[in-house]
Amino acid sequence: MVRPGLTTATATAAAALVALAATAALADPLPSWRDTDAKARLVGFVEAVTDPASGDYVTPAARIAVFDNDGTLWAEKPIYFQVLFAIDRLREMAGDDPSVLNSDALRAAAAGDMATVAASGAEGLLEIVAATHSGLSVEEFEAEVRAWLDVARHPQTGMTYAAMVYQPMLELLRYLRDEGFRTWIVSGGGLHFIRAFAEDVYNVPPEQVVGSTGEARYDAEGPAPRIAKDPGVAFVDDGAGKPLAIDARIGRRPIFAAGNSDGDFEMLEWTTAGDGPRFGMIVHHTDAAREFAYDREGHVGRLDRGLDEAEARGWLLVDMAEDWERVWPAGN
Amino acid sequence: MVRPGLTTATATAAAALVALAATAALADPLPSWRDTDAKARLVGFVEAVTDPASGDYVTPAARIAVFDNDGTLWAEKPIYFQVLFAIDRLREMAGDDPSVLNSDALRAAAAGDMATVAASGAEGLLEIVAATHSGLSVEEFEAEVRAWLDVARHPQTGMTYAAMVYQPMLELLRYLRDEGFRTWIVSGGGLHFIRAFAEDVYNVPPEQVVGSTGEARYDAEGPAPRIAKDPGVAFVDDGAGKPLAIDARIGRRPIFAAGNSDGDFEMLEWTTAGDGPRFGMIVHHTDAAREFAYDREGHVGRLDRGLDEAEARGWLLVDMAEDWERVWPAGN
Repeated sequence: MVRPGLTTATATAAAALVALAATAALADPLPSWRDTDAKARLVGFVEAVTDPASGDYVTPAARIAVFDNDGTLWAEKPIYFQVLFAIDRLREMAGDDPSVLNSDALRAAAAGDMATVAASGAEGLLEIVAATHSGLSVEEFEAEVRAWLDVARHPQTGMTYAAMVYQPMLELLRYLRDEGFRTWIVSGGGLHFIRAFAEDVYNVPPEQVVGSTGEARYDAEGPAPRIAKDPGVAFVDDGAGKPLAIDARIGRRPIFAAGNSDGDFEMLEWTTAGDGPRFGMIVHHTDAAREFAYDREGHVGRLDRGLDEAEARGWLLVDMAEDWERVWPAGN
Repeated sequence: MVRPGLTTATATAAAALVALAATAALADPLPSWRDTDAKARLVGFVEAVTDPASGDYVTPAARIAVFDNDGTLWAEKPIYFQVLFAIDRLREMAGDDPSVLNSDALRAAAAGDMATVAASGAEGLLEIVAATHSGLSVEEFEAEVRAWLDVARHPQTGMTYAAMVYQPMLELLRYLRDEGFRTWIVSGGGLHFIRAFAEDVYNVPPEQVVGSTGEARYDAEGPAPRIAKDPGVAFVDDGAGKPLAIDARIGRRPIFAAGNSDGDFEMLEWTTAGDGPRFGMIVHHTDAAREFAYDREGHVGRLDRGLDEAEARGWLLVDMAEDWERVWPAGN
């Protein structure tokens, strides 16, 4: 038997839930996206794969969405923010012991010569990362990243780096999750670097962060065991590495992929080559006024092949200047 | 306003849920475990970490449980079942092309000489795995495993391999999940081999399977892109590799770990060295009548250091003969 008091309380709660659901259905899930074709395509896809009556319906378990990070979820100019972290850390280390600056790339980095750092390519960047991302445990490293994010400021905007995430992409992440998707980050950036803020900033838990990894070692010699970060790169999660990492980590082909550079090409290709409804999107940096404008040229975030092939492959090219009403959570 | 009909229906549904919850709370979650100290410790731990009023309460997000597979969730004698799969596949391949048998371990395997295969150690096993687990896509490989599991029979019991899972461990996996844990497999066995059956047999989805991996390659040359399995080992998820893989894949330290051999030692050490309530358990194979009895000797599932140190480290040693009322889902 149900007591009358419980019946009333349950009925009230049910009514509140029904009202809440109706509001949620009517509210715009993507308020920072203008009413352009881009938004219509995104919403159309999500509505189709979540409607059990649709021929495109996809079960929640298969609703996997993958997102690149640098240039897709947050900015990446003048250079990847992880490199700026590494440079700050390198300077701090060189203050204690100048002999750490034992290569051209390391000396350029410490001197703030970004052009030389950028021109040193992947090799130079990896050198800087190796020198600054080793010699401490994973927990210590993530604490260093969080401490840096609290105080460091972008050289051009003066904003904290965590404030330089794209509001429209935060909305898209949340919209997809509200519709039963699981959202994963699949980034060329460092796994532990991204984990240090992904849960707070993107609401993406550590197990759903895929990234590049350095060598690591289980060290049980001390008073308590630790995971020690060593120099040396174990896996670069970029280009063809992305579908490989998706297979290794997720074990299911995503149905949605978002990127911004040719490093995301294979991830979009792999995602959209699967059967059934698929969505590939590229954030095209067209907004020099509010963010940065770049594509085919440069060392960071180069988009060339993707720009040529997006239309033929059916991938959405998001025009930041046209499609986004707002770029930053706290600004215009 | 809530219509009267909805009120009644909601109240009825609520009453049914309350009744169901009461039944679930009273039902024994571990019916195949005898009422020994082992069961009391398991239930006591789960009740403590899930009780918000307990000083040992752990939030659901941190309720991570990791399980070894071979010898912990299913049997592993006379040798790892994956090796038996590899041998069957090797024979099939050698039938088409005898030149694949180009080493002592491969010839012994094809001849069914298990003693020589077991004595060839990790190197011999990896050779057999490399020869049989490459040259096809991940999807093709998993289909091969599933086809084999449908028909192959264990040489001693005559059971299918998927029937040789431990009923008490299936109950433990489910009990933990019912109590808000996420259950992960962290196995020395192959990632794709385990994924081929983990969801059906253990209710563990592909992204929660951690295992050893072979080299792989993204191949976009053909009509559709594929993940190609190549020969060569990329990562061995055993011993100190287990905490490293837990860090890379899960990114949080588990609070519960179950293993059976010294290959699980570091995983249990890493898990139980964390702050707050922790549980380590070792399945000790003591039951020659219903399963197999082994520990310190042999090539497969060797348990030596763990047996010496379990008590001092506070790890539960499960005595299969004493603690389990039933071993197999379909048998005694």
